[in-house]
Amino acid sequence: MFKRVLIANRGEIAIRIIRACQELGVETVAVYSSADADAVHVKLADQAINIGPADATRSYLNVAAILDAAQLAEVDAIHPGYGFLSENADFAEAVIKAGFVFVGPRPETIRKVGNKDAARELMKQAGLPMALGSDPVHSLEEAVSTAAKIGYPVIIKPIAGGGGKSMFVAQNEADIHTAALKIDFTTAGFYLEKYIANARHIEVQIVADNYGDIIHLGERECSIQRRNQKILEEAPSCVITPEMRQKVGALAIRAAKSANYTNIGTVEFLMDKNTCEFYFMEINPRIQVEHAITEITTGVDLVKTQLRIAAGDPLPIRQEYMKFNCHAIECRINAEDPDNFFLPSPGEITFYHQPGGPNVRVDDGVCTGSIVQPYYDSMIAKIITCGRTRGDAIKTMRRALSEFRIVGVKTTIDFHRKLLDNPYFCSGDIDTQFIAKRMTPSSED
Amino acid sequence: MFKRVLIANRGEIAIRIIRACQELGVETVAVYSSADADAVHVKLADQAINIGPADATRSYLNVAAILDAAQLAEVDAIHPGYGFLSENADFAEAVIKAGFVFVGPRPETIRKVGNKDAARELMKQAGLPMALGSDPVHSLEEAVSTAAKIGYPVIIKPIAGGGGKSMFVAQNEADIHTAALKIDFTTAGFYLEKYIANARHIEVQIVADNYGDIIHLGERECSIQRRNQKILEEAPSCVITPEMRQKVGALAIRAAKSANYTNIGTVEFLMDKNTCEFYFMEINPRIQVEHAITEITTGVDLVKTQLRIAAGDPLPIRQEYMKFNCHAIECRINAEDPDNFFLPSPGEITFYHQPGGPNVRVDDGVCTGSIVQPYYDSMIAKIITCGRTRGDAIKTMRRALSEFRIVGVKTTIDFHRKLLDNPYFCSGDIDTQFIAKRMTPSSED
Repeated sequence: MFKRVLIANRGEIAIRIIRACQELGVETVAVYSSADADAVHVKLADQAINIGPADATRSYLNVAAILDAAQLAEVDAIHPGYGFLSENADFAEAVIKAGFVFVGPRPETIRKVGNKDAARELMKQAGLPMALGSDPVHSLEEAVSTAAKIGYPVIIKPIAGGGGKSMFVAQNEADIHTAALKIDFTTAGFYLEKYIANARHIEVQIVADNYGDIIHLGERECSIQRRNQKILEEAPSCVITPEMRQKVGALAIRAAKSANYTNIGTVEFLMDKNTCEFYFMEINPRIQVEHAITEITTGVDLVKTQLRIAAGDPLPIRQEYMKFNCHAIECRINAEDPDNFFLPSPGEITFYHQPGGPNVRVDDGVCTGSIVQPYYDSMIAKIITCGRTRGDAIKTMRRALSEFRIVGVKTTIDFHRKLLDNPYFCSGDIDTQFIAKRMTPSSED
Repeated sequence: MFKRVLIANRGEIAIRIIRACQELGVETVAVYSSADADAVHVKLADQAINIGPADATRSYLNVAAILDAAQLAEVDAIHPGYGFLSENADFAEAVIKAGFVFVGPRPETIRKVGNKDAARELMKQAGLPMALGSDPVHSLEEAVSTAAKIGYPVIIKPIAGGGGKSMFVAQNEADIHTAALKIDFTTAGFYLEKYIANARHIEVQIVADNYGDIIHLGERECSIQRRNQKILEEAPSCVITPEMRQKVGALAIRAAKSANYTNIGTVEFLMDKNTCEFYFMEINPRIQVEHAITEITTGVDLVKTQLRIAAGDPLPIRQEYMKFNCHAIECRINAEDPDNFFLPSPGEITFYHQPGGPNVRVDDGVCTGSIVQPYYDSMIAKIITCGRTRGDAIKTMRRALSEFRIVGVKTTIDFHRKLLDNPYFCSGDIDTQFIAKRMTPSSED
């Protein structure tokens, strides 16, 4: 195992990685921007190095500063977390070139899966089921004609990037013209795909070692999204049977193998609610926000697994021994105003008290006195609850949310409480349009 | 299930019961002394009723005030928690007479097991293995002659009460004279027992329904004690084999059956480290501080089980289906000064931040701004960690303790960190004298 690891991230995921390192006996080096000098992740690490000003492009995205810090602290490896540089193949390459281990897949894998267009091509060849889609479009006119060929509704997606940003659903030609006001088709940075209405977002956690072995850790249901971004996730999905799990798990493994995948990752699918067919979406070559629910249902510590695989360990468990226990739910607590278009709500947290008791896990990045910075992602905490059944996990989540006290910034806590009381949610009747359809008016935007 | 339950307690156990009630859909009524008006348990309950001044004898021990509150709030049942009135048979009787359900064993059972002398007699008749011991002694002279008959070392125990208070080990006659300076033998309130040196404290959780069915939920190892009071507990014990578990479990069930036991309880044993023989100590007819570790290793929610059994449910699970998974450890965080004879350290908590992340559970009774009162027990929080192995649970506990921030009062956090680094503790070589033998000088008193 490594002696010392640098964590090129902040907030809850930096703390999550520090926790894994501490339990593995690995020393931790945090990095921070000047805005984060008093942040919790800085206090919990064995040492911390300032890598630049508040602006992330000059700190958390500053490859040179991060590599300098790694050299200064004499670390063995760098863990990128999620967001920031985690899906940047050039960064992974630079890390390796500088003599450190990159805790993640190989740079060429990151590059392959990061270009959505190339990834689609690769997956098509590997036999993954794909939604009807196009090559990159180069103009508004081409977008319109392609959409007509595929058939409405279509979804306009950026070729690079992920996390649900800059995606537009077009029900008709007029919607494509509206999208063109916000994005520039002439950059050839976008492609179109048949939009599957009433779809569920089902993703599969995969774990691959450096010796060609690969397993899946079951699915996560992430259909509850606002603006194409997940806010509540659960495992297992209440509509996935053991047979479907085996099927989508096998698809995920096939996808990962075709990308010569190592370390952990997630293969995302859309599932048509009517036909129960899966359609490949993308591969996320990093730890995900919602990894904790899989940790609870499988007993596998995914962050430790990342570190162990990066250090050369073989897979921790064989597919046939994987057991899926209990039901886990995660609510993302963002410093946002759900009654005002989920706009970020930065500021000082003047009082903070986490929920506790049985079957509650809190992964967070703040404490009483923390400043929620306007520069970074607004997620400040995750509550994860579990129970023997989905109903039990929901009850515990309701209870945990009612205990969580955050004063000073607006949060999504009350929004989640409404969500968990929604009868459609409770019955499991959810899809990616759930919030728009079932949670109006507070989610209108 | 009940509609509304009154919780005749405070602090973390009151909150623990509120949590269970909330998840069961049961309304909660807290009671509080004037000193506790701003306490967390008051805020989390659906309603709260002031039952008297700070002095516990006039509030949390005030049977009339508690029954008045129960009548006022129109509750169905009263949960006593631990400590205070929880082992008071007269209280249980008064609760039932007033028309409420008492969440605990029958009053006659509480009475039987509460009188240590009568309980010893009952258990002897039931065939439980007992340490050599005496009937009550009535004078110093009788104590000396009885000790000579039993053979030193002996332990002097109060006939009433439990929790390790007012117990004295005498290695010789001089020690009995010293004890006589602190206690009055002429009250006939004490008895002597052969003292088993190098003993482990092993206790068994039992669950009994109102229909004669009874199971055990495995053992807890509670050998780490200071002044005969537990401060760290774990489940399972690292020296108990499945065969021994079956044996001591059967003994516990026999003990409980002989007391016509219902609801949950704990049968405490001393285990001779040399012979591995168990000796009956006492039965605690209530939820225990350390119940959470059993909840984690068995998946059984003990507080919900108490409520369900009190409401008339049969046992939740059969003995043959009980599985013991993983290893769990609990550290009691007391507002005490370990460097000063563990003296209580009351005052305002000016900053409070719990540990989080995987495999950590926090059950606590305070938050930033709470006042630790001098009137009540000094325990303010419990950290419970788990892992596949004892080593894993220890690593996670070390990590969790290092994250826990409490400013304003002295606590046992650093003491626990030292304890968890002790090589004898880590190797499992522990007994009830561990702190005195292995943790000097900070524990000398």
